[in-house]
Amino acid sequence: MAQVTSPGYANLDTIRCGDTAECENTIAASDIDAFARLSLDVNPIHMDAGVARDYGFARPVAHGMLALGTISRLIGTELPGPGSLWVSQELQFAAPVLSGDRVISRVTVEKVSKAAGLVQLRTVVSNAETGAVVLSGVAKVKVLSRSEQR
Amino acid sequence: MAQVTSPGYANLDTIRCGDTAECENTIAASDIDAFARLSLDVNPIHMDAGVARDYGFARPVAHGMLALGTISRLIGTELPGPGSLWVSQELQFAAPVLSGDRVISRVTVEKVSKAAGLVQLRTVVSNAETGAVVLSGVAKVKVLSRSEQR
Repeated sequence: MAQVTSPGYANLDTIRCGDTAECENTIAASDIDAFARLSLDVNPIHMDAGVARDYGFARPVAHGMLALGTISRLIGTELPGPGSLWVSQELQFAAPVLSGDRVISRVTVEKVSKAAGLVQLRTVVSNAETGAVVLSGVAKVKVLSRSEQR
Repeated sequence: MAQVTSPGYANLDTIRCGDTAECENTIAASDIDAFARLSLDVNPIHMDAGVARDYGFARPVAHGMLALGTISRLIGTELPGPGSLWVSQELQFAAPVLSGDRVISRVTVEKVSKAAGLVQLRTVVSNAETGAVVLSGVAKVKVLSRSEQR
């Protein structure tokens, strides 16, 4: 059985305000297809280049959740990291991500509450080419310990 | 080229406060695996039954985004429907969804602003067996028209 107190697991004692984690991803047409199959969100604005053009977009618009998925990855694997549990998110999809866009995603620790076992992070995804913010928001994440039986 | 003014596309003139759409889904282990592959969020709390048990969960915890994905589906395909664009979401992951749980997802129109082209919806996902709310929040969705070139 995994030792959840092992190095690499989220640990409130080592998280500081200002800590940050970042990743860069291309949101490919294959990602849009995979998320549509998984979620059944087949809104044609995501699936059909002709419909996207009718609405004024040069290429299909990626599901907002693909941008948010990069934040899920950073929270779940880097900061706070394995063993953390997302408890809330406030977010704006500030601009559309189009199929093929490259994005830079970043989470930054804003508050650490040891009493509540919570970390608050600012979450930002930007278009890597233009620098435009495409997603902004605030996440609250619970850092669990093995003693917290539920 | 698709006619985005066709019946079935989101239309602010036919959306009323109180309108609602609902769907029911089982969040299967295969969904967790597919989302992990797509997002690279391989937090072991989602992927490893032993780690999940160490943290006090009977089964692996589904990514919160799988619950939110059911809301994406309702917004993008039913209410407001095709042609709508999610612009913001405030949400609480009120309780974990465990692998194999069946959930009921519902969106309900709270406000329609024709001037801004925006619809505000309450978003709720509940455990179908226990009735417990697992996700609650508020979405704002832009209903686009073909004339809104960008």
